[in-house]
Amino acid sequence: MSSCWGNKVKISIFGESHGKGIGVVVDNLPAGEKIDMEQVLMHMGRRAPGKDKTATPRLEKDLPQILSGMLNDTTTGTPMCAVIENTNTRSGDYGNLLTAPRPGHGDYPGFIRYNGFNDIRGGGHFSGRLTAPIVFAGSVCRQILEKKGIKIASHIQSVGKVCDSKFNPLKVDESLIDSLNKQSFPVIDPSSEPKMREYIENARMSQDSTGGVIECVATGVPAGIGSPMFGGVENLISSIMFGIPAVKGIEFGAGFAITEMLGSQANDQYAYDENGKVVTLSNNNGGITGGITNGMPILFRIAVKPTPSISKPQQTVDLTKHENTELVIHGRHDPCIVPRATVVAESALAIALINLL
Amino acid sequence: MSSCWGNKVKISIFGESHGKGIGVVVDNLPAGEKIDMEQVLMHMGRRAPGKDKTATPRLEKDLPQILSGMLNDTTTGTPMCAVIENTNTRSGDYGNLLTAPRPGHGDYPGFIRYNGFNDIRGGGHFSGRLTAPIVFAGSVCRQILEKKGIKIASHIQSVGKVCDSKFNPLKVDESLIDSLNKQSFPVIDPSSEPKMREYIENARMSQDSTGGVIECVATGVPAGIGSPMFGGVENLISSIMFGIPAVKGIEFGAGFAITEMLGSQANDQYAYDENGKVVTLSNNNGGITGGITNGMPILFRIAVKPTPSISKPQQTVDLTKHENTELVIHGRHDPCIVPRATVVAESALAIALINLL
Amino acid sequence: MSSCWGNKVKISIFGESHGKGIGVVVDNLPAGEKIDMEQVLMHMGRRAPGKDKTATPRLEKDLPQILSGMLNDTTTGTPMCAVIENTNTRSGDYGNLLTAPRPGHGDYPGFIRYNGFNDIRGGGHFSGRLTAPIVFAGSVCRQILEKKGIKIASHIQSVGKVCDSKFNPLKVDESLIDSLNKQSFPVIDPSSEPKMREYIENARMSQDSTGGVIECVATGVPAGIGSPMFGGVENLISSIMFGIPAVKGIEFGAGFAITEMLGSQANDQYAYDENGKVVTLSNNNGGITGGITNGMPILFRIAVKPTPSISKPQQTVDLTKHENTELVIHGRHDPCIVPRATVVAESALAIALINLL
Amino acid sequence: MSSCWGNKVKISIFGESHGKGIGVVVDNLPAGEKIDMEQVLMHMGRRAPGKDKTATPRLEKDLPQILSGMLNDTTTGTPMCAVIENTNTRSGDYGNLLTAPRPGHGDYPGFIRYNGFNDIRGGGHFSGRLTAPIVFAGSVCRQILEKKGIKIASHIQSVGKVCDSKFNPLKVDESLIDSLNKQSFPVIDPSSEPKMREYIENARMSQDSTGGVIECVATGVPAGIGSPMFGGVENLISSIMFGIPAVKGIEFGAGFAITEMLGSQANDQYAYDENGKVVTLSNNNGGITGGITNGMPILFRIAVKPTPSISKPQQTVDLTKHENTELVIHGRHDPCIVPRATVVAESALAIALINLL
Repeated sequence: MSSCWGNKVKISIFGESHGKGIGVVVDNLPAGEKIDMEQVLMHMGRRAPGKDKTATPRLEKDLPQILSGMLNDTTTGTPMCAVIENTNTRSGDYGNLLTAPRPGHGDYPGFIRYNGFNDIRGGGHFSGRLTAPIVFAGSVCRQILEKKGIKIASHIQSVGKVCDSKFNPLKVDESLIDSLNKQSFPVIDPSSEPKMREYIENARMSQDSTGGVIECVATGVPAGIGSPMFGGVENLISSIMFGIPAVKGIEFGAGFAITEMLGSQANDQYAYDENGKVVTLSNNNGGITGGITNGMPILFRIAVKPTPSISKPQQTVDLTKHENTELVIHGRHDPCIVPRATVVAESALAIALINLL
Repeated sequence: MSSCWGNKVKISIFGESHGKGIGVVVDNLPAGEKIDMEQVLMHMGRRAPGKDKTATPRLEKDLPQILSGMLNDTTTGTPMCAVIENTNTRSGDYGNLLTAPRPGHGDYPGFIRYNGFNDIRGGGHFSGRLTAPIVFAGSVCRQILEKKGIKIASHIQSVGKVCDSKFNPLKVDESLIDSLNKQSFPVIDPSSEPKMREYIENARMSQDSTGGVIECVATGVPAGIGSPMFGGVENLISSIMFGIPAVKGIEFGAGFAITEMLGSQANDQYAYDENGKVVTLSNNNGGITGGITNGMPILFRIAVKPTPSISKPQQTVDLTKHENTELVIHGRHDPCIVPRATVVAESALAIALINLL
Repeated sequence: MSSCWGNKVKISIFGESHGKGIGVVVDNLPAGEKIDMEQVLMHMGRRAPGKDKTATPRLEKDLPQILSGMLNDTTTGTPMCAVIENTNTRSGDYGNLLTAPRPGHGDYPGFIRYNGFNDIRGGGHFSGRLTAPIVFAGSVCRQILEKKGIKIASHIQSVGKVCDSKFNPLKVDESLIDSLNKQSFPVIDPSSEPKMREYIENARMSQDSTGGVIECVATGVPAGIGSPMFGGVENLISSIMFGIPAVKGIEFGAGFAITEMLGSQANDQYAYDENGKVVTLSNNNGGITGGITNGMPILFRIAVKPTPSISKPQQTVDLTKHENTELVIHGRHDPCIVPRATVVAESALAIALINLL
Repeated sequence: MSSCWGNKVKISIFGESHGKGIGVVVDNLPAGEKIDMEQVLMHMGRRAPGKDKTATPRLEKDLPQILSGMLNDTTTGTPMCAVIENTNTRSGDYGNLLTAPRPGHGDYPGFIRYNGFNDIRGGGHFSGRLTAPIVFAGSVCRQILEKKGIKIASHIQSVGKVCDSKFNPLKVDESLIDSLNKQSFPVIDPSSEPKMREYIENARMSQDSTGGVIECVATGVPAGIGSPMFGGVENLISSIMFGIPAVKGIEFGAGFAITEMLGSQANDQYAYDENGKVVTLSNNNGGITGGITNGMPILFRIAVKPTPSISKPQQTVDLTKHENTELVIHGRHDPCIVPRATVVAESALAIALINLL
């Protein structure tokens, strides 16, 4: 299914960038869960465009309308639908002709996939705007998880070659999680932010863009969650993460670096901690072995490619004239979507985890 | 579902390492496909243990018995079941007590997940032996794909820090594919093999193990396959790849390295080639944008961690005595499963692709 | 999944009777299908309440808003969402206490299922109003099927003990189908209507209600559709039909009556017709054997129970006081929902068939 | 998926009548469930052919081999596979030509569906023999349900026009359930059996066959199980029941007869019983309203058509010569499969219920 995900709590996302609205149906949520809508809006604000660090996280124009599934701020247990109206709808007929597909975007593959009938205005269903419903759904799921002691956070691990500190893989402090959860430019080491912003600004000034890596963590997930072989935690998390536009890689624990370790370094050895709980002495497996959680923090990183929309001239094809051409994309573009993508990744993680529990 | 995968062609894998047998049901294969069983056995031989490079690829003891779904070497279209008998079955009652879980294995999470009732002998359902049914199913799917012009190959990109050449992301020669498909230690640059083998041997001599990276490619996949947002090619491939034990990461195209590029470097610009076909001038997206194929080679890499079973003493817990203890794993272990895992990855890719087409 | 259905074209229905709105997401429709929205509204009108035979089929208040998936009246191929606003929304807090569950309704089971948190106003998500999104989605699918030569119709086979003629199981005339498709009280034999209406009116006058049987047909479905054992046409059709509130039975072809035939009577013998097409000489199997279509009309009947909401006093329990009590349901109720349910059944059939093709 | 069913506990059935073997994979069973294999074999014996009432229920030739998922007669929680060898396998090449499709069978639709490549010997994958794996899987699930206080039974409601008594819809005695569970010709009123047997014998003597109705019950299912709209108990039960060959209808509670009742008769009114439990005073809804259980017995009936294989000459087509022809089916055939189908229905019900709990 193209835009559906989940087997216990299922999300079904709809909408095109310039249609009447976008949104999500969340089916099979548990009944009776009180949801703090301000928190949901706070997270949606972290994803919303057109802000900088000091801006209010609440943007009226992206306010979700909850059509069903909530009563007195409490889940009813029947399907929840939230709609975000598009305010940039143009009425009337218009040409939907794709001439010059933008490199790095879904334009050309989408043109083939949909025989030219998909809505290409603003990226249509491929638009990054479609991550807003993920954040809505994920922010609801996240609150349900929090009541079970599960916390989720992420930070910008790197922008281009500028790196932040990493999470302590053995224990992530609650205070750090809480602090990251409120930021629209979440970094662990505050000194990373100006350097990253400068790097982004440089890219922007040269009519270019930059990508980065996001590191995500979930703490408090009990041991024994997930199933071999294809019902594993890594299978599920990766299958939803690649639904976030621009994600090109995912690695759990030490990830690709584990391939350069010896087994004796890579293996997470066990011990009882002071409370008699089984812990591991390292966390190169990101809290998961055999597809199942071991009670340590779930830790992974995703690679986010540079924003494909850049002002620099690019080579492309003219699909109507069947000839090569040059493309210049006009308008203001986000030179780096990594900061806004952090809360999207957290939300997708929340949706994945609620399906595993 | 734990060991089921697929929505068009579905595989359902079963078996434990020391049970009566392991196998797979492949449901909903197209009818009327002639299958060359020698080819299937050749690929299964590439995965089979206990061989070296010069050994016969056909190991009688891992011969799959096809119980259904084939008639006159042709698919009937109804479910195909293949069973591989275990010859190491011990009869009678016995203790199934897990005392000291092996670091890096699924022992401890499995113990929690199954309340201690899962079969732990030889790893049970977590055993790498369970990849044999994947290779069986994938080798059948692969032949069906080949008739549509789709070819699959992989090579050992690295073992520890020893690297092979990479695939040309724009075009992978058929002769290279054909050659790699026959090897049990597939590398592009033949000079990599002795260096890798030496590295592995060194790990083995120090009672240790090593991991590596496998690079996979599929050529001939037409543009327009896959769907945003969660029905994308990356979502599906990653969700099956993490079903292969020891895989800790996956990256498509340039993968994590794309995060250090600028947009102008990362974007795969379009042009018409000499045959009037739309191609890209680079392939940093691994043949996929917006979740959909663009007609270029599908290219990805998976990170395989070092074999967790090592002879070196390791710290672990005694779950019956509730105390810390030391573990020494006896017996001969594969110091590096990367070569054998190549054909498993190729097979999983074939299963993923047949579900997308 | 509670309110999701389908594996190729998936519908996800949401909404509660007194919430802000109800609707449906239809995922994975083919792209480029021109949809006549007047036709969709005509069918929605056949289901809409508050009309009689002569009323306009288009009721403004149930107009679906299409938020996505359509452009220039053509499917984009990405998810289609339609929302129908509820005009009876009451704002503010209110009690959601269920005291006396109505016999025959989902009140009591829903109370247990959702721990009392589901919205019970007007039946909430159990309301017959939730069939409007089915009709929307089904009416879109139906037009796509029609272009493939597949036509769908239904008629009121019986109301209480008053029966209509039956479809000719071997061939249903197009003119009959077209005529039934326009009626909000579809019967084959026009003389049935006044008798049925009288029967309904008598029930209403005695503060009671009545049920009936709906007979459905799909013509033009090619042979070879469906799969044994659980992917059969009967499996899929039945699994969606029981999603229509009040349906208590389904039978294909001769249905329960086939059990009283001998094999020689029940078997549908084959012959070539004048056009060299394989046909059957009877159609006791309703166009399906072995779960697969044989090219004859698909024919089935569903049993619709009497409307549970009646004015007559009924015995029930007071769940707050934990004692038996008497319930009188006030307000105007539809004494027979069978006529309105015909188009719902047709729509559900369309959704089932588009998933099979 | 053709022969897969379930979303929590999934069965994947494979095999052809004359292939090497048939069987089932049961994925995601709970771990640690002790299974009495004698009980499983007893139920499989009730389905097995070639016996009469006095025969031993244990037929060695249909003994399932359990390849995985069981250890010390206890479920491991990982996939369970059971294989039943076919002893009638013929080796070597042979013709698989379908000339004259048997009326009432899946021959012709299967020929179209599989382009003539499916195994037609003995019905292939369409054979009633494929219900043996259902009984195996269901008999395992049934024992797990029994520990939760859920009991399942069925009886032959009718053969042709000869009827048995019906279940008391409000309460089915445990002793009756236990007694029916042991019978291979289960009837409530013992005097029905000789009349039914005579009816069947008469059909057989006239080279004909007969069908019947099976009534099923599940007691002890708690209220609150199932979900509107498509996750309802009726949706799930019906979707698996139509996987049993020859089933042409299903009705819950009063079923089709409810359409002739008035609402005041049909509605199941509520009351507290002597133990303070909410019960209904009638059970015309078969224990289900709004798709959810209400705590009363789940009750339904399925229509089983007469065995299509009869010795009487029948009209059919010669698909190779493209002309009409006459068919005489030789060999001994079961003139009535209804008795053997009872335990198949019970088993399918067990599989459905374990997916709902």
